[in-house]
Amino acid sequence: MNYYNSHISKLIEEFSKLPGIGPRSAARIAFHIVNMPKEQTISLADAIMTAKDKVKKCKKCYTLTDDELCPICSSPKRDHSVIMVVETTKDLAAYEKTNRFDGVYHVLEGVISPELGIGPNEIRIKELLERMNDGVAEVIVATNSSVEGEATAMYISKMVKMLGVKVSRIASGVPVGGDLENIDEVTLFRALEGRREL
Amino acid sequence: MNYYNSHISKLIEEFSKLPGIGPRSAARIAFHIVNMPKEQTISLADAIMTAKDKVKKCKKCYTLTDDELCPICSSPKRDHSVIMVVETTKDLAAYEKTNRFDGVYHVLEGVISPELGIGPNEIRIKELLERMNDGVAEVIVATNSSVEGEATAMYISKMVKMLGVKVSRIASGVPVGGDLENIDEVTLFRALEGRREL
Repeated sequence: MNYYNSHISKLIEEFSKLPGIGPRSAARIAFHIVNMPKEQTISLADAIMTAKDKVKKCKKCYTLTDDELCPICSSPKRDHSVIMVVETTKDLAAYEKTNRFDGVYHVLEGVISPELGIGPNEIRIKELLERMNDGVAEVIVATNSSVEGEATAMYISKMVKMLGVKVSRIASGVPVGGDLENIDEVTLFRALEGRREL
Repeated sequence: MNYYNSHISKLIEEFSKLPGIGPRSAARIAFHIVNMPKEQTISLADAIMTAKDKVKKCKKCYTLTDDELCPICSSPKRDHSVIMVVETTKDLAAYEKTNRFDGVYHVLEGVISPELGIGPNEIRIKELLERMNDGVAEVIVATNSSVEGEATAMYISKMVKMLGVKVSRIASGVPVGGDLENIDEVTLFRALEGRREL
């Protein structure tokens, strides 16, 4: 839609490129920006540039961090012999929120996806295997339970086992509080397969 | 959620302030920004600052534009004796898209809303009335059919009539292609009230 203003059109276009923002939301945001106080605009533009410039990746686990090593990798309180492998920093954050894991992480920055042309070399598997020298006792694979996540888990499991390190996979099943009738068949089947004796 | 990175947290916070973006979408966008090519980041930040700095309001109709006067107000092809009053530039754009209106516009930049403490002086009604000197034949009020939009229309109608200018209101009714059973009662009643002989 032509709003008779090239700058607004440009802003709408830029926002439309972001994930989850369609042309209508982009227009709403653009008009909001034009009307918001100047300091807030500066603050937003600055946050974008700073995040892009200053965010580093931990040189050990590849999570996004402010320093060379993330607070988890540099903490003496964490058990560095147990590595949980996740797809993204967001997944790491989700597990950290549980406060129930005291090992360290390895962020793959993606999953193997033949469809998208992403092979094992496009994600941080090599870097994970390099960490196997440091007295690692167990690798817990916590990729998502999507087709790609499972395939990635299988691949990692094979490679890590070859190096003589124990590998495990987080359990699949019915989510706590989930209503059985609303849960898909694959999850129900997984929950059955993974049943434990009481 | 703590992502172990102050810059990302800041970026998520800034995006959460925008309309229609919750904390989850903000996080998704923030991670996307960190991973996108640098040129695209610059382009986004730049579009934000430029829109804020460069967007002007037409000094006649108050629509957002690049110049002192918008292309519509400065066009000799438009009928300057008919003014359509709209709430926002977005509404103007919607009417322009129809290609069926050749008059000019007046953007109120809001509606009268006692609830939000917005009175007639907070929107561009005074500026509309000042335009009544220029040989205006008709004012078409195209505010939304919300309670505030209707109240604003009533107010404008009273003021414009006092200056001896004809005022009309766009029709309310069943939208074209709309299914009667899905339309609210007020709209159905309006459509009945506004019926025309065939």
